[in-house]
Amino acid sequence: MSQATGIAERLAWIGVDWGSSNLRAWAMADDGQVLARAGSERGMLALTPDDYEATLLATIGDWLPDDGRVPVRVCGMAGARQGWREAAYLPVPTRLDDLARGAVRPAVEDPRLDVALLPGLCQHPDDAGRRFDVMRGEETQLAGLAAREGEVSGPVCLPGTHAKWARLEAGAVTRFATFLTGELYGLLAGQSVLRHSLAHGPGEDELAEPGCREAFVAAVREVAAAPEAFSSRLFGLRAQDLLDGGLPTGQARGARLAARLSGLVIGLELAGARTVLAEGERVTLVGAETLCPRYALALEALGIDCRRLDGEAAVLAGLGLAHAALPHDAHTPDTRPEP
Amino acid sequence: MSQATGIAERLAWIGVDWGSSNLRAWAMADDGQVLARAGSERGMLALTPDDYEATLLATIGDWLPDDGRVPVRVCGMAGARQGWREAAYLPVPTRLDDLARGAVRPAVEDPRLDVALLPGLCQHPDDAGRRFDVMRGEETQLAGLAAREGEVSGPVCLPGTHAKWARLEAGAVTRFATFLTGELYGLLAGQSVLRHSLAHGPGEDELAEPGCREAFVAAVREVAAAPEAFSSRLFGLRAQDLLDGGLPTGQARGARLAARLSGLVIGLELAGARTVLAEGERVTLVGAETLCPRYALALEALGIDCRRLDGEAAVLAGLGLAHAALPHDAHTPDTRPEP
Repeated sequence: MSQATGIAERLAWIGVDWGSSNLRAWAMADDGQVLARAGSERGMLALTPDDYEATLLATIGDWLPDDGRVPVRVCGMAGARQGWREAAYLPVPTRLDDLARGAVRPAVEDPRLDVALLPGLCQHPDDAGRRFDVMRGEETQLAGLAAREGEVSGPVCLPGTHAKWARLEAGAVTRFATFLTGELYGLLAGQSVLRHSLAHGPGEDELAEPGCREAFVAAVREVAAAPEAFSSRLFGLRAQDLLDGGLPTGQARGARLAARLSGLVIGLELAGARTVLAEGERVTLVGAETLCPRYALALEALGIDCRRLDGEAAVLAGLGLAHAALPHDAHTPDTRPEP
Repeated sequence: MSQATGIAERLAWIGVDWGSSNLRAWAMADDGQVLARAGSERGMLALTPDDYEATLLATIGDWLPDDGRVPVRVCGMAGARQGWREAAYLPVPTRLDDLARGAVRPAVEDPRLDVALLPGLCQHPDDAGRRFDVMRGEETQLAGLAAREGEVSGPVCLPGTHAKWARLEAGAVTRFATFLTGELYGLLAGQSVLRHSLAHGPGEDELAEPGCREAFVAAVREVAAAPEAFSSRLFGLRAQDLLDGGLPTGQARGARLAARLSGLVIGLELAGARTVLAEGERVTLVGAETLCPRYALALEALGIDCRRLDGEAAVLAGLGLAHAALPHDAHTPDTRPEP
């Protein structure tokens, strides 16, 4: 018996997080156990609507049984207007156990696939200080948090290229804000005049090197106290590299300045996140082991308490919640289900 | 008589502003008249020290008389450590009529050239809130302002890729700050997720289109009032493009959002510039017709008065001041002159 056959026998449903630049898929048993993982670099930006079914089959086809139809529950950019088929944004406030009502079912040719795409969330401006904003994918991680903890309330941070801060009230998202943090860091470190002064790229953990945690924390505090100085602090990194005899030399110098740059962009985010974060509240960080410890350090520097939920655990719990809520119909028509 | 011959007869000295990516040169008469202009795309980043003399001769060789030695006064990145020869930064406070004391004379082979490279300014951290900072080229424009107006005091703004704000006190630079404004705009408009929402590049004047001045001014005010929201306002541009039914369509939509992005980055600069700008003071803008009107509009939106000095007039006056201060010796050795 092949591994794939073993999976097919226990397979209850498949979860997919389909982003702009890649997709991750999980074969799930009825009891919530992950039977297998798969992935592909074929994200939304690389695909036209006609490509999705073939890409999905190339990624998870081995898991499918010969007969029967398997529920595939998909969050992320596959549901964007430029994706497989649009699952229109639900406006906040939205209960996190209610995302399935915005799911759409794209037409598929393979009779073994029962695909539903989950919607993202949107926010329009109002008198309470909300601003235009959108998320696609993170709402499913938030739903996972709610699935695990029930009527959860409080601020949640999802670090990343476009970091999200959401405010939850009794299991609903009431407001959120997106920060360009990861993208800003990447552009500044890789393509601005600062690149000459940095020895580390975004993927490396310079904070493990001596003096770098202190440089990171100092930068977080500086920009949180004076966010208006952000742009001049950026150029100041270059000037410090040219003038500061107190910095180490070589690779250690570049690491120190990279830690400072990371602290500046994360510090700006934390300063701005105060619209969703009340005094004395504990922040829930949802994300990977790569970024969350850095955010925890930044929050600690500002005297803010936090805890962490693993990003994969969150998205699987959120997809599972949608799976439980969506009817599994072997002959579902190509229309959005009634609310 | 060729034009070049006519120039050579009246030529008193040559001014050069040699930046990272290009150089501009002026043939000057004794009375301050500009006899001719020339330029090249061969800036510091494209040159090694041995290339400078040949590049200079290729640009201004036609102006030189057959005999005699012509003073060539150079500001900008040619005096950087990675340039022709280093003219070490002078630390602030520095009197603007005293830049010539930091000039260095690179060795040249052509007997018709008497070249002096002017120094930049640097700033070290202190208890008065100064920060590491450097400038090369802008100090000569500031010197031009002082040459025209004497013991000038007050805040001066030089818009650009790395915009400078300097505080002058009785003809001296006492502190300054650099903002990454132009570079930040270029990276965000050209390479971030926002590029999908913008129809205009940095070189185009979208403010001429309907509704764009208003969008620019609103963005300046927003970020000046809440600089901590800068990073989320950036992503908000993308969200607004996806959600806002009130925006025009097509090219006009992209222009509106480009105006907003410009307002956000300039607004962040103005918020941060308040360290060199006291309440009620008038700002002197030194720069080109392309950027200064935009800055004037932004300043006006914040209730700050300003006036403008043309950037070319400023750099020529500053180079002229250095020319008057530096001895013209046909046999100057290759060493820095005594202070």
